[in-house]
Amino acid sequence: MARRRASQFLAGYCCSQSHSLVRRPPLCSQEPASISAPGLPHTHGKATSMFKPPSKLYRKLNSQTSCDIMQVHYSRTYGIHQRSFTSAAINIQRSPSFSKLNSDDIGYFKSMLGDKNVVQDEDRLSAANVDWMRKYKGSSQLLLLPRNTEEVSKILHHCNSRHLAIVPQGGNTGLVGGSVPVYDEVIISLASMDQIISLDKVNGILICEAGCILENLNSFLANEGFIMPLDLGAKGSCQIGGNVSTNAGGLHFIRYGSLHGNILGLEVVLADGTVLDMLGTLRKDNTGYDLKHLFIGSEGSLGIVTKVSILTPPKLLSTNLALLACKDFLSCQKLLLEAKRELGEAISAFEFMDSDAMDMVLAHMDGARNPFPSSSYNFYVLIETTGSDESYDKAKLEAFLLRSMEGGLISDGAIAQDINQASSFWQIREGMSEATVKAGAVYKYDLSLPVEKLYDIVEEMRPRLGEKAKVVGYGHLGDGNLHLNIITKQYDNNILAQIEPFVYEWTSTHRGSISAEHGLGLMKADKIHYSKSPETVQLMASIKKLLDPSGILNPYKVLPQSMLQ
Amino acid sequence: MARRRASQFLAGYCCSQSHSLVRRPPLCSQEPASISAPGLPHTHGKATSMFKPPSKLYRKLNSQTSCDIMQVHYSRTYGIHQRSFTSAAINIQRSPSFSKLNSDDIGYFKSMLGDKNVVQDEDRLSAANVDWMRKYKGSSQLLLLPRNTEEVSKILHHCNSRHLAIVPQGGNTGLVGGSVPVYDEVIISLASMDQIISLDKVNGILICEAGCILENLNSFLANEGFIMPLDLGAKGSCQIGGNVSTNAGGLHFIRYGSLHGNILGLEVVLADGTVLDMLGTLRKDNTGYDLKHLFIGSEGSLGIVTKVSILTPPKLLSTNLALLACKDFLSCQKLLLEAKRELGEAISAFEFMDSDAMDMVLAHMDGARNPFPSSSYNFYVLIETTGSDESYDKAKLEAFLLRSMEGGLISDGAIAQDINQASSFWQIREGMSEATVKAGAVYKYDLSLPVEKLYDIVEEMRPRLGEKAKVVGYGHLGDGNLHLNIITKQYDNNILAQIEPFVYEWTSTHRGSISAEHGLGLMKADKIHYSKSPETVQLMASIKKLLDPSGILNPYKVLPQSMLQ
Ligand SMILES: Cc1cc2nc3c(=O)[nH]c(=O)nc-3n(C[C@H](O)[C@H](O)[C@H](O)COP(=O)(O)OP(=O)(O)OC[C@H]3O[C@@H](n4cnc5c(N)ncnc54)[C@H](O)[C@@H]3O)c2cc1C
Ligand SMILES: Cc1cc2nc3c(=O)[nH]c(=O)nc-3n(C[C@H](O)[C@H](O)[C@H](O)COP(=O)(O)OP(=O)(O)OC[C@H]3O[C@@H](n4cnc5c(N)ncnc54)[C@H](O)[C@@H]3O)c2cc1C
Repeated sequence: MARRRASQFLAGYCCSQSHSLVRRPPLCSQEPASISAPGLPHTHGKATSMFKPPSKLYRKLNSQTSCDIMQVHYSRTYGIHQRSFTSAAINIQRSPSFSKLNSDDIGYFKSMLGDKNVVQDEDRLSAANVDWMRKYKGSSQLLLLPRNTEEVSKILHHCNSRHLAIVPQGGNTGLVGGSVPVYDEVIISLASMDQIISLDKVNGILICEAGCILENLNSFLANEGFIMPLDLGAKGSCQIGGNVSTNAGGLHFIRYGSLHGNILGLEVVLADGTVLDMLGTLRKDNTGYDLKHLFIGSEGSLGIVTKVSILTPPKLLSTNLALLACKDFLSCQKLLLEAKRELGEAISAFEFMDSDAMDMVLAHMDGARNPFPSSSYNFYVLIETTGSDESYDKAKLEAFLLRSMEGGLISDGAIAQDINQASSFWQIREGMSEATVKAGAVYKYDLSLPVEKLYDIVEEMRPRLGEKAKVVGYGHLGDGNLHLNIITKQYDNNILAQIEPFVYEWTSTHRGSISAEHGLGLMKADKIHYSKSPETVQLMASIKKLLDPSGILNPYKVLPQSMLQ
Repeated sequence: MARRRASQFLAGYCCSQSHSLVRRPPLCSQEPASISAPGLPHTHGKATSMFKPPSKLYRKLNSQTSCDIMQVHYSRTYGIHQRSFTSAAINIQRSPSFSKLNSDDIGYFKSMLGDKNVVQDEDRLSAANVDWMRKYKGSSQLLLLPRNTEEVSKILHHCNSRHLAIVPQGGNTGLVGGSVPVYDEVIISLASMDQIISLDKVNGILICEAGCILENLNSFLANEGFIMPLDLGAKGSCQIGGNVSTNAGGLHFIRYGSLHGNILGLEVVLADGTVLDMLGTLRKDNTGYDLKHLFIGSEGSLGIVTKVSILTPPKLLSTNLALLACKDFLSCQKLLLEAKRELGEAISAFEFMDSDAMDMVLAHMDGARNPFPSSSYNFYVLIETTGSDESYDKAKLEAFLLRSMEGGLISDGAIAQDINQASSFWQIREGMSEATVKAGAVYKYDLSLPVEKLYDIVEEMRPRLGEKAKVVGYGHLGDGNLHLNIITKQYDNNILAQIEPFVYEWTSTHRGSISAEHGLGLMKADKIHYSKSPETVQLMASIKKLLDPSGILNPYKVLPQSMLQ
């Protein structure tokens, strides 16, 4: 493997931008027809134009309700042979404690919300009943569109006293089946609550309603010299209330950290309609228990988030992006450590992929191009830095890369020279998900692991599955977040049995998390024990019962049903 | 007010250090005689040698129990004429639901912990019964020193079944009376649980027992290239478990944020002895409710923290410190905004003080020196930056200050040239608390307020109190944390009535917090309503009852007693 000389490396690509390097097409929020490509999985990061939805096809499908038809479509396009679309597939019974909606309920909602905010139209309902991946599908007969906190409170008060189950819905981009009904739960959409309330320009504190779309908030802030502290591929559709409720991670997590650190306050409506005003705007407030954290990441099962107060960092002007090749995973790890030490808080993304992942993108994604065509390497790393001093930032990254190359951590590398090159680098990383789907039937796992163990599961999985499967690893290395993808010719229960529960058990043994950023939702509600101790899960269940004694908030999700009876 | 020319300013002091600028003498942890000067209040930041305790005097006092004698001492030395030392003063009755300790209890504890970890010695007990400020004093007859989580669990299991109330005690440096008993609660000290368990050098994740002293952790980390994300004047005594339990802020809060963002996991023992293993080491983990946040800042009232997992930032090598003069508070505010924008995450401290505060330090603190002797200004700001690139960091700060001076935000300024100058700058800020105490009887308020309102309360207080009082304002401007200090000749109930509840009401009206960083403890348990809504306080009380049905954990603290019956 030829090692490029350091001087050559530096003479290579070189630039910095004053704007976002990659233009990501927004996902439109209220019209699922334009937000999703059936069968296209999560892009884990920035969405690029590769992810344009086949909207016509979807519209056709959307007017149908049979999951068989959907399955045929999926298998034709991507060779995936089994999907579960209904609650039956996850073996959960409708809870007998819930009432059925009646005409008095509808009458009450109409009198309170106005006719147009009480949606019974079949097309709109069927869109809201299906999740982004088309994997989960409920059969709700009612979608409500409250316009303010008081209306949310009245809705919940009514539903609680009538034992009507509900599901809060934001942008419906969640990936674990949390945002759609399982049976006939009333869907409460926050879409009409999208007002920006205030921006404190001294402290960068934004207060807004929960239904604000992440990208809209970012655009608003950009004009004021701030940015949102989180960024997701779904930003054109997802709502800040949904982000808070899933504790979304995303691309800039390595820079700005968790929402537990950035959210300053919340307004939340509890199951019985009580409004909890915790909408603080203070960086420091040690008066009693900090209850807002209970709602961050509780996936709509403890309350409906109606307003959010969030600390927004200043918008910085220079961005640099480098794609690097490393000989082994240890070098990637060491590079991360050195980068944290030397580039410090300038790092805004630190992604990695193995050579099988790279090969898969190159083989399946039109236009994907290897910047190191003459050689092949075992691992690739993408480092983005963002700062306020264009020439210094660039020089600092260059110097760091030079040292890393001289020290043997990097075998080759390139700094994007212009926006096109930056796009083509991102395209490789972002094309990964789609490439794996194009390559065959794919089993996807989103794991959080200690960085030094992170790649072991990939290496253990390979001999375990042998020739039958291609195992690739990539993800947010900087956050210890691995996307383990296993691609086979076709879906096969024997292979599945070799993967699960092994992958969950392995993750558990290494004190990892079986859900790094997507939550548990419906998909992994009964898998929580792999990541949390029995006593902790027991306390979660007690808190759920304390806050929502009738269990009307997003039932069947997050916690095992058995613990809530 | 002469404005120094920018060129002159830059030709002035100039340096950067590769080590901490100020050497702070550690506060010794287990021997209160050496940690505290009676009557010396909280230093709010780095402790300097100014705060050397009159230990002989204290030892004499410590062997006595009469609060009258203490009061005489205080008033003689510092002119403070009223202090409350016992539970009587705060009008709380011992809860009849608690049992009294008997010989069987002692026998059980001795058999389980060994004789030497069951402390009944009067001197040691009386030290543990009194808080750092000598303001609160309990009458516990028993101090237990568990050595591991299992022992903590067995102690709590026993106490819970016997209805024996307990108080968890860390370094006993808390400033709101939370760490000492009110009556005869059993003191559970974490001092013997001070083992470092592991450091993940790739991710900078430290796991340690709760009794580790903050400064020891920092020294350990320094050798490994990391630092703790928090720094307090009390670091030589306070324990990480105490920091977590008070959600301590401190000097570097502006840089590294809240412990809610930095703590990755906790092990906590609940009231009934159940061990909650939430000791995750992952940056991302979205599996269920993130319960560790309930315990961060709950001041020992929901459980005893036994182990901590914390994200530690890399240790950076260059530090710069500037003391600046501003003509008005608006300029300080604008300077903060500009500094955040231009210096970004390089800022590691941003403190302010008004001219009355400055004058008070100059008048009362030996050795305090005004760096701008020929002029007097209305406000002073201290900016510290920390980075990895010595010459660049210095140049960047200089350039920023130059622009700020040209733009009129700064009227004068100096960059510390060596460690002595840096110390003398810090001495001004850190001498503030002691200076106010020396100046007379002082009423102290630790408020969190929106930055643009932060100084208004100082300005409203002045005409309100007239000639009778000197009102000074200083604090952690970067975090919106004001220390409002009102100094009078002698303590006077009429003056108090003009301050309280006005100061709490004013803070509440402006959605501020009546406790920015110290917690509520015993002192402000019944003031919580000024900062939290009734519904939120109600939910806190429900959670307290859920986790600690017998109320044995740190009773009379954090929440109003009336809500827990
Ligand atoms: C292309 C794409 C890229 C993605 N990238 C990332 C990524 O990088 N990182 C990451 O962490 N996730 C990612 N996700 C998943 C992520 O969870 C969601 O994008 C987002 O946070 C959910 O917001 P939403 O408004 O769409 O919520 P929804 O999907 O509508 O809801 C998600 C959950 O939150 C609940 N909920 C929604 N709004 C509220 C509310 N106001 N109050 C209470 N509960 C509510 C719902 O009931 C549901 O349980 C991605 C998804 C897609 C489709
Ligand atoms: C000189 C000085 C400077 C200070 N500076 C700052 C500052 O800059 N910022 C700031 O925020 N605070 C500051 N403080 C106050 C601060 O709260 C404490 O210094 C520190 O966080 C408390 O730690 P400790 O171990 O001394 O806890 P203690 O004082 O022993 O206890 C504090 C509270 O936590 C509980 N507790 C302690 N340990 C545990 C445990 N393991 N499990 C459960 N509960 C526990 C106690 O019951 C009590 O309610 C300062 C104090 C002093 C004396």
